[in-house]
Amino acid sequence: MANTDSVKVRVLSLNCWGIRYLSKHCPQRYAMIGDMLCKEEHDIVLLQEVWSEKDYLSLKKKLACSHPHSHYFKSGVIGSGLAIFSIHRIHDTFLFRYSLNGYPYMAHHGDWFGGKAVGMAVLNIGSLTANVYVTHLHAEYCRDKDSYLPHRVVQAWELQQFIRHTSAGADMVILGGDLNMHPQDLGNRLLRSYTGLQDAYLESAKFDGCEDGMTLIADNPFINKKELCPFEKGIRIDYILFKGSTKTDIYCDYMSTTKGSVPNHPFPYSDHEALTAGLRLETHTQTRSDRQPKIKDSAAGKLAALVDIVTEARTEVKVGLHCAEGMRYTATRTGVMGLALLVLELAIAAVPWLALGTEQPFPRTSFYLLAALCFAILLTTFLLYIFYTMELKALQGAEDQMRLAVGSLQEKLRGFPLAQPHNAPRRPPEGHEPSALTPEE
Amino acid sequence: MANTDSVKVRVLSLNCWGIRYLSKHCPQRYAMIGDMLCKEEHDIVLLQEVWSEKDYLSLKKKLACSHPHSHYFKSGVIGSGLAIFSIHRIHDTFLFRYSLNGYPYMAHHGDWFGGKAVGMAVLNIGSLTANVYVTHLHAEYCRDKDSYLPHRVVQAWELQQFIRHTSAGADMVILGGDLNMHPQDLGNRLLRSYTGLQDAYLESAKFDGCEDGMTLIADNPFINKKELCPFEKGIRIDYILFKGSTKTDIYCDYMSTTKGSVPNHPFPYSDHEALTAGLRLETHTQTRSDRQPKIKDSAAGKLAALVDIVTEARTEVKVGLHCAEGMRYTATRTGVMGLALLVLELAIAAVPWLALGTEQPFPRTSFYLLAALCFAILLTTFLLYIFYTMELKALQGAEDQMRLAVGSLQEKLRGFPLAQPHNAPRRPPEGHEPSALTPEE
Repeated sequence: MANTDSVKVRVLSLNCWGIRYLSKHCPQRYAMIGDMLCKEEHDIVLLQEVWSEKDYLSLKKKLACSHPHSHYFKSGVIGSGLAIFSIHRIHDTFLFRYSLNGYPYMAHHGDWFGGKAVGMAVLNIGSLTANVYVTHLHAEYCRDKDSYLPHRVVQAWELQQFIRHTSAGADMVILGGDLNMHPQDLGNRLLRSYTGLQDAYLESAKFDGCEDGMTLIADNPFINKKELCPFEKGIRIDYILFKGSTKTDIYCDYMSTTKGSVPNHPFPYSDHEALTAGLRLETHTQTRSDRQPKIKDSAAGKLAALVDIVTEARTEVKVGLHCAEGMRYTATRTGVMGLALLVLELAIAAVPWLALGTEQPFPRTSFYLLAALCFAILLTTFLLYIFYTMELKALQGAEDQMRLAVGSLQEKLRGFPLAQPHNAPRRPPEGHEPSALTPEE
Repeated sequence: MANTDSVKVRVLSLNCWGIRYLSKHCPQRYAMIGDMLCKEEHDIVLLQEVWSEKDYLSLKKKLACSHPHSHYFKSGVIGSGLAIFSIHRIHDTFLFRYSLNGYPYMAHHGDWFGGKAVGMAVLNIGSLTANVYVTHLHAEYCRDKDSYLPHRVVQAWELQQFIRHTSAGADMVILGGDLNMHPQDLGNRLLRSYTGLQDAYLESAKFDGCEDGMTLIADNPFINKKELCPFEKGIRIDYILFKGSTKTDIYCDYMSTTKGSVPNHPFPYSDHEALTAGLRLETHTQTRSDRQPKIKDSAAGKLAALVDIVTEARTEVKVGLHCAEGMRYTATRTGVMGLALLVLELAIAAVPWLALGTEQPFPRTSFYLLAALCFAILLTTFLLYIFYTMELKALQGAEDQMRLAVGSLQEKLRGFPLAQPHNAPRRPPEGHEPSALTPEE
């Protein structure tokens, strides 16, 4: 006999746009966010872009009563900007820094300095273990020519790996954050298919918020409408994703977003909209493998689809590899030219000394200036060479892992009787989960 | 009725010392290693310091028959140097790069460029899932004044986090590698107590190898005896660690190391000795929580000991923080001095121009040389500032996580009736494992 317990969990995710002195009305908005969180008392609050630790600490002070447990994830030069506040005790935390995260010399984009990562917190909600993840992926500055796409795909790859491998012992998995990807973008499909995470917006029984669940909308006064183009009304790039386990079923009862303004306030909380999801967990004393399988699609079909997605991701990573190789080659060539110039200059300088007694004065100023230029070129290209080599290693590493994953998935696919994609076998193998691949397998 | 199945797994771990053109007899040693691995047919081979991918590829070619499955972990500038060869299929891999790993300007130590990491491979051995980890921590160059100690402690901290959080779904956990830590060093105690991993050398029923299980010995012809001082005979810094799960018990039937030479060969495989462990897994259809608990020490005592170890690690990280703050302060001060010098120089340069008509010739050469020096100082100190800030963030992050962990452990300790350290309660809480903290808790 199945014994059913129900636990409700309210989750909020918000990109706070908290760049001190640069983001508009930053202190006022943090005050508004603090008041709202204090009042609303969500079980779990997942914040991104809390760039200053001071802002985190002032929020922590304000939420000491409503959310006694919190963690701020430190990483990179500025920090990861990630923070978790919780009503439930946080037992353990872990941070995974993405191996790729833009370029340090693209300082105006700033992503590299943020040290983008995924933070994990292990919470006990009643007798259940919840693994809660918060992340913020590299921004998309130009959708048509997105030079950061391979980096973001590798980040999505590492995110799914991290969640998949660390959540085996959890009864409930929640991921919230600014993924900087549209719902059908490659990285998003990769993440959802591989982990089996479900999108709260798509699964919610009730929804109240912006059209199509958008989280970056034209109606938000902090948004530059031109930058949204060609998506006039806005885009959906912030998410709350969730999944249960063999022991639990999880449902999204309702979901809401803010709508570009806050009643009784002159401006919204942030340039992004805040997301709230009401999740309900049902625990069974029986494990899923004992019950009727609840899988709608066929496991083989899912595997085949996953093979396609990983193959697509591999292609994207290969594009990145090609690009990084080109950049490293350019850096090497420029460095060699700098060295040649230096040698040439030294040769020219050596001539008047060899030809002693020449009356012509030695052009010292030009000599030193040119030498300084050569050294600057050599140093810069050396640093760039090191950086691109690290980028290449990270991309190659991801590509290797993806190749291995495709091989393993195909092997598994061969194990299915009449393994025809999109053709459901009656019953998946024992203990098989909605996610196409669990670490146990 | 308990149904017992037995599976035997032979594991080898070896630091290959594979620096092309620098390590002595590198190609010949790789040939010897390849021959030995081909002949011995260990189930799992964990290699470190395979710095060149070419060497990995030639090993892969040689071992194509004996070990058809392999993975090379790429990271950092040179690579992580980590490789896994396996008789059993590798289904999945994952790499975690340590957040701290020495300093790039300590180029002669080279650790920073190696991108030290822990690689994980998920293998299916029969019906069991084995999570296999291979790692190589930062070297210890001077035991008395070990400036890398905080980095190595943070690496050990991240290693235990990574293993603990990713191994919940595994029936068997194996870690092999060069930990660069003596058996009773802080990082080693932290790793073993937190994860519950057991040391094959200590647990082995039979042992054949160097005295005290040493893996870096004075008798090895590649070893500079002076560097071992004050440990005349050698040290034990390479390990094979293992643990089972609630479903499996794991035993080490035998362990062996090479002894500084290889029969019929003029020199050994490496400057480190190779370790081989024969592990035996016994599966039970009952889970451990149903059986009599096999825990010798009290869970409360273990928790109390763990609190002490984590507190000790926190202290060490704080020493590192203090040191990094000092270094960043020095970089800042030097940068400010460079800037002041530049301003002063510009002021001096401006004077002759202001005082028009002075006959004194302007010392252009010195001016440009000094300016170049100022710029070099500014650039260097800026880069150092960025680097030390990242180091500080990583250390602070680890310290935060450790503080939270201590709090959580103490909370748990309070939950024990009559929680007196080293005083065994009759029965640990249901499902409690030999490891003091499992991710589920």
